[in-house]
Amino acid sequence: MEANKRRVYLDHAATTYVKPQVLEAMTPYFTEYFGNASSNHTYGHEAHAGMEKAREQVRKAINAQLPQEICFTGGGSESDNMVLKGIAEAYAKKGNHIITTAIEHHAILHSCEWLEKNRGCEVTYLPVDAEGRVTPEQVEAAIKPNTILVSVMFANNEIGTLEPIREIGEVCHKHGVLFHTDAVQAVGAVPVDVQAMNIDLLSMSAHKFYGPKGVGVLYIKKGVRMPSLIHGGAQERGRRAGTDNVPGMVGLGAAIELAVKNMPESAKRIAALRDKLMKGILERVPECRVNGSLTDRLPNNLNICFRYIESESILLGLDLEGIACSSGSACNSGSLDPSHVLLAIGLTHEQANGALRLTLGDGTTEEDIDYVLEKLPPVIERLRRMSPLYVA
Amino acid sequence: MEANKRRVYLDHAATTYVKPQVLEAMTPYFTEYFGNASSNHTYGHEAHAGMEKAREQVRKAINAQLPQEICFTGGGSESDNMVLKGIAEAYAKKGNHIITTAIEHHAILHSCEWLEKNRGCEVTYLPVDAEGRVTPEQVEAAIKPNTILVSVMFANNEIGTLEPIREIGEVCHKHGVLFHTDAVQAVGAVPVDVQAMNIDLLSMSAHKFYGPKGVGVLYIKKGVRMPSLIHGGAQERGRRAGTDNVPGMVGLGAAIELAVKNMPESAKRIAALRDKLMKGILERVPECRVNGSLTDRLPNNLNICFRYIESESILLGLDLEGIACSSGSACNSGSLDPSHVLLAIGLTHEQANGALRLTLGDGTTEEDIDYVLEKLPPVIERLRRMSPLYVA
Repeated sequence: MEANKRRVYLDHAATTYVKPQVLEAMTPYFTEYFGNASSNHTYGHEAHAGMEKAREQVRKAINAQLPQEICFTGGGSESDNMVLKGIAEAYAKKGNHIITTAIEHHAILHSCEWLEKNRGCEVTYLPVDAEGRVTPEQVEAAIKPNTILVSVMFANNEIGTLEPIREIGEVCHKHGVLFHTDAVQAVGAVPVDVQAMNIDLLSMSAHKFYGPKGVGVLYIKKGVRMPSLIHGGAQERGRRAGTDNVPGMVGLGAAIELAVKNMPESAKRIAALRDKLMKGILERVPECRVNGSLTDRLPNNLNICFRYIESESILLGLDLEGIACSSGSACNSGSLDPSHVLLAIGLTHEQANGALRLTLGDGTTEEDIDYVLEKLPPVIERLRRMSPLYVA
Repeated sequence: MEANKRRVYLDHAATTYVKPQVLEAMTPYFTEYFGNASSNHTYGHEAHAGMEKAREQVRKAINAQLPQEICFTGGGSESDNMVLKGIAEAYAKKGNHIITTAIEHHAILHSCEWLEKNRGCEVTYLPVDAEGRVTPEQVEAAIKPNTILVSVMFANNEIGTLEPIREIGEVCHKHGVLFHTDAVQAVGAVPVDVQAMNIDLLSMSAHKFYGPKGVGVLYIKKGVRMPSLIHGGAQERGRRAGTDNVPGMVGLGAAIELAVKNMPESAKRIAALRDKLMKGILERVPECRVNGSLTDRLPNNLNICFRYIESESILLGLDLEGIACSSGSACNSGSLDPSHVLLAIGLTHEQANGALRLTLGDGTTEEDIDYVLEKLPPVIERLRRMSPLYVA
């Protein structure tokens, strides 16, 4: 890539950079306060204090009741695995039925499949409407006497649709069923309040909100039994073994505090840029459609289908112009299967294969959007001219 | 603690600081090359390149045959859990018997107990001799037709004893049984060669050799079936889901390369300081004994029992002098049970409760050792005077 070419990163749903303030908070824990947080000496106590400060930052950011409800993990996927496998193990005597949706992240879906195959669990995958929404009524209708867990994502990672979390939580609690939400895309982007929203278990991942990779959280409401996924030492109140990743935790804590503080202003600014991008593309490019909801949606997400062409070719064309975005989710890249999310909202294979996900972030500027609006239409036009499906 | 007091860190077996060169290698991956390594654009490719460079550094350091044999994980405990639960799952049709030792890390022992309780596995815990050694003959005698895995640690985390890994691996292969070693304490400290040592599976953790916390490796020899412990995306060839922790991996790669390069000189220097410390304590303090082998031992480890007193009190006394060390292992701190390792080598509860682990590192100086030799004896003397068991 040429040195002076403009670079525009519109793949914040895949991952974000670590903000300077976050890295600054972390750095002393690599070099100076580097002790093992379990060690009973000053080095250990220094590290422990950093960890507990981060735990409190997380507690406050999601309005958990107690710091010990915050369990640090190695990331969002680990948190999701821990919930599903842990609840299936701890509540086996109560039942074996789990309710989830067809559009969850693969960390949820593949864990469910593993539980079906290896642990005799029964899983209901609720369908979604054309905008990717599941309703509390659907959840309620699916609850059975042997239901032990409902897991519905807070915001979809591909199309950005926000689910009616509070209402689903209400239904779960009415029937005495635990409620988990994979909030990996939501935390730091939209308000999350575990108490007001009736959430018992919640997954998050630091690198989605300008924190470091390799660290996440599972919120576990007091009273919920949660066995370890990783056995060994007694870290995290015996729920997650392994030396505490203190610099990572400190980074997560600093990042979530910053994200929540900036949210009102940042979400508004980003949504306005996203709307400009959406409007600009729809005006300039014929035969494209926006996927997901126009109202209940993450502020930074745009998912749009371009007919007649493959998204992988669009990505390549945009990358040559310095623009980074995504087809579907990063976790699925390399797979040639069309997105399970786009199929679930009713798209055909052909439509789903032409989808592009553009996700904005705190560093995105008006100039970035103008640049994309200048470069994207000719890329689409050129690819369509080469497409055997396209008749201009 | 007073600002100018000398601080001496002798707890490198618990964790190490991140070396400046390592942090320097990592930093650009937090801020500049921050992409998701699975993303199909330039940001993704930059991150992917960093990850693959790190994978090659690890491959070379342990003489693995192929880069794809290196599977990055969230740390040593996760690697240990992945091996035991993964092999038990993947080889269930072959058998359900696992052989390990009584002195393994709790990530191994508690995973074994979980497999016994939840998966119908049968586990043999081999006893060790007075220096903490298990023999190839013991392993061979324990192998049965339904044995699927032998897991013996490379070096013990409390007493530093090195096990006869190559010979145990040979016995395993003679009988067609997979061989895993938890090398968390060994990698970076002593030579590790997976091919020459007949190792099929090996766990390591970056923060034990001046790399970051929250990242480890499971070496998986080509041909060994290894299902995921964490399901989701297809990262690490489908063996470990979750967004790649690229800065962590880059740090691990840089740290292992540095450790292997420095090892000949560093190990010699550290062992000499350790021997000076040992000799000095034995000369100055009556009624103490060194635990573990004097020959087959990690260069940086000293484990020593002081009669009549509790190690927790010694730790506190030394911490007030600015000296950080450990009783047993950091993973067990807070537990009042005596060390399972010290009991396994034949110590009484009373002896085990007076054990101190001093582990040196690359930053340890001659002056540090002199300082400990000055400060430790009066601490012991004072505590003994207060002990009801002690008669001077």
